[in-house]
Amino acid sequence: AELTHVNEQGRARMVDVGAKPVTARVARAAGKVLMAPSTLELVRSGGTRKGDVLAVAQVAGIMAAKRTWELVPMCHQVPLSGVDLGFAYEADGIAIEATARCKGETGVEMEALTAVSVAALTIYDMCKSHQRDMVIERVRLMEKDGGRSGHFVRED
Amino acid sequence: AELTHVNEQGRARMVDVGAKPVTARVARAAGKVLMAPSTLELVRSGGTRKGDVLAVAQVAGIMAAKRTWELVPMCHQVPLSGVDLGFAYEADGIAIEATARCKGETGVEMEALTAVSVAALTIYDMCKSHQRDMVIERVRLMEKDGGRSGHFVRED
Amino acid sequence: AELTHVNEQGRARMVDVGAKPVTARVARAAGKVLMAPSTLELVRSGGTRKGDVLAVAQVAGIMAAKRTWELVPMCHQVPLSGVDLGFAYEADGIAIEATARCKGETGVEMEALTAVSVAALTIYDMCKSHQRDMVIERVRLMEKDGGRSGHFVRED
Amino acid sequence: AELTHVNEQGRARMVDVGAKPVTARVARAAGKVLMAPSTLELVRSGGTRKGDVLAVAQVAGIMAAKRTWELVPMCHQVPLSGVDLGFAYEADGIAIEATARCKGETGVEMEALTAVSVAALTIYDMCKSHQRDMVIERVRLMEKDGGRSGHFVRED
Amino acid sequence: AELTHVNEQGRARMVDVGAKPVTARVARAAGKVLMAPSTLELVRSGGTRKGDVLAVAQVAGIMAAKRTWELVPMCHQVPLSGVDLGFAYEADGIAIEATARCKGETGVEMEALTAVSVAALTIYDMCKSHQRDMVIERVRLMEKDGGRSGHFVRED
Amino acid sequence: AELTHVNEQGRARMVDVGAKPVTARVARAAGKVLMAPSTLELVRSGGTRKGDVLAVAQVAGIMAAKRTWELVPMCHQVPLSGVDLGFAYEADGIAIEATARCKGETGVEMEALTAVSVAALTIYDMCKSHQRDMVIERVRLMEKDGGRSGHFVRED
Repeated sequence: AELTHVNEQGRARMVDVGAKPVTARVARAAGKVLMAPSTLELVRSGGTRKGDVLAVAQVAGIMAAKRTWELVPMCHQVPLSGVDLGFAYEADGIAIEATARCKGETGVEMEALTAVSVAALTIYDMCKSHQRDMVIERVRLMEKDGGRSGHFVRED
Repeated sequence: AELTHVNEQGRARMVDVGAKPVTARVARAAGKVLMAPSTLELVRSGGTRKGDVLAVAQVAGIMAAKRTWELVPMCHQVPLSGVDLGFAYEADGIAIEATARCKGETGVEMEALTAVSVAALTIYDMCKSHQRDMVIERVRLMEKDGGRSGHFVRED
Repeated sequence: AELTHVNEQGRARMVDVGAKPVTARVARAAGKVLMAPSTLELVRSGGTRKGDVLAVAQVAGIMAAKRTWELVPMCHQVPLSGVDLGFAYEADGIAIEATARCKGETGVEMEALTAVSVAALTIYDMCKSHQRDMVIERVRLMEKDGGRSGHFVRED
Repeated sequence: AELTHVNEQGRARMVDVGAKPVTARVARAAGKVLMAPSTLELVRSGGTRKGDVLAVAQVAGIMAAKRTWELVPMCHQVPLSGVDLGFAYEADGIAIEATARCKGETGVEMEALTAVSVAALTIYDMCKSHQRDMVIERVRLMEKDGGRSGHFVRED
Repeated sequence: AELTHVNEQGRARMVDVGAKPVTARVARAAGKVLMAPSTLELVRSGGTRKGDVLAVAQVAGIMAAKRTWELVPMCHQVPLSGVDLGFAYEADGIAIEATARCKGETGVEMEALTAVSVAALTIYDMCKSHQRDMVIERVRLMEKDGGRSGHFVRED
Repeated sequence: AELTHVNEQGRARMVDVGAKPVTARVARAAGKVLMAPSTLELVRSGGTRKGDVLAVAQVAGIMAAKRTWELVPMCHQVPLSGVDLGFAYEADGIAIEATARCKGETGVEMEALTAVSVAALTIYDMCKSHQRDMVIERVRLMEKDGGRSGHFVRED
């Protein structure tokens, strides 16, 4: 087993994907911001009456997905064909899910994971004056399709 | 209790911090990338003999800290006076810790949290050809000092 | 009368503001997106029931204000202390107003104008599938204070 | 009638264009910076003898067109095949026209409109020490071709 | 002979490459950072025992290659399929070589040259506390293939 | 002797400059693009009659100076108070000089060097259809003042 991002000098490179076929690709990632009930209540009520935390996190996640290649050094510049995020209020916090799509030579799991991470950071930022010990939890790939490695689905 | 990032129209704003005093501020954040022993072994050996995953993650985290305000919509443009990251190999993955410092009107916890998140995403990216079900776990603020709200320390 | 952005070779330069005093500065800019009543109705109803066009425009305007110096070549990197946007439904379209603040050596009118322009472009983008001939109208400085040139207010 | 940028949760998404055919697309946009005769004269004379305001605005508009997707949240990352800007001195100001082209799944009207807006902001910036009440006027789409919606031309 | 980056008004434009065929393209560029033996020794020893200057320069060069179109105004947004850098310790400094690849309508020599330049700047930055009079020398195109103009190779 | 950009784990860090005094700082850098007489003639004539290569390089250099911290990983976000570039036609090419200024805790030599490098890359880009074997030569720091290390001047 070898890491592919390594050149002959033992340094990182951006792997050449030019010979890979262009296929439709999709990746879905998820994560959660754990927060106290009172913080959750602030976000919920804000969503209907006041500053919509999730509307801002939605925009932040989408914009970050497009900039993944500027953040993660060995990522290719993938022109995404679509990005979407969804949120769910749960008992202990806010669950985030992001889906990224492209037609290209390389997968978009980093784009989906980046969307979730930045949406989570945005929720943290907008609630931190109320609660400082929120935790961004279990950012992970849920599903991936397109490309040589087949269909991956994670259950939990 | 109110969210501060909300204007009179109920929309988000970037809160004016112009009246706050300039003080020396520091924030420390942490997180972990959970991975299989074989993936961990690849990173470890790569660290000494081949492509240094953690060297790339280090650079990615530092550069991302400086770009926090481009990612998190309501964050101020904080000119950081310093950023550092550290990594620790643990039994179930790689622990990440980041420290950000500035002299300014506003805290740098988002910068520290962003550094950890992007370093974690970079580790994921460089190892994903070997393991797809790694999880970015417990990204959280560990310590914060400077500013009105006093010294915050988290134990776990 | 001379343009200040000109060096001895007759080329543009970023004027040195290092000798100017640091003062609290504010600028307010305005503009409007002219649209058909049916488009306006779509935005209005979307604002309460569905996709909130103005929430996205709000975020876009704030983020663009922070990036003004990346867009307008001779603008200084101004760390804004605050940014806010407001919208008003009018008979013939949506009025936009943005306020930018900083403590610094140079004014923030470009930041306020950029916020209005990008918020307007965002509204156009999100409604263009419904109406293509919307017009972004009368983007202008409404008020400016702080700095040597005194208080400027525009009436219309 | 519905806005397409809306997901099932009523939040904005970046619409998936992956199934649309790749075609050659072009968009032309226009706008004007209204200014006093003395300001216009400064720009004109600067254009031949001194600091060339329009040369800077030209570069700013082209660079901004390429960054449209970083500014307008729901815009796709469109690799432009070409961008051009033209300026015309008129009695009451400077008219700006921009043309953007790509081969892709989605139109480039936002890129043309962004080029005009940022060129206008740049002209404003470079002349604002002379005149503060300039107005950016009638930024609009003039022509669009390629894609399903056919050829659009605006007369005024 | 004419410069192609010029429109009818005598201003720069981003040339339309939409009619050019998509081919596999590669470019290789080189350069050197001249430094004193003691500085060279610091980098060498740092490479094995301490802060790895070249690991940081590697990442910086790769990330800069992807951002070439944001820096060089008339460059197209080329989605690179791969980027790699190599370094060689020489008697009078550190030689840098970068290779960029894409499948597209336009060459990637600017991307390779930008990678070399920014890697060189990064080496300078990390060693400047030790030596201020280092020189970045002979940044040049070494090889280019793909596209109409044929195979170019430079010997020295 | 030690490199300052190294943390205890032997990895790079962005050194904390928070304790350094804020002083007025200036740095001047220089470089040259070597080119054939016919290429030089194209730039010269273009400078007066047609597409002004140097006007574009001027803008590119200024904008790049402001983005140095996004390119060079361990550079601080320095808000520049001013940037200027100058060009001189010489027998064998075009000499470039850039001056950067700030009031801050850290020097601006990287900003001046980046301005020169990106201006040189831009000249290369705009002339490369005419000549491919131009060389970017002797990018170096010419002068630096402000800060603890005193006044540095280079003669050649």
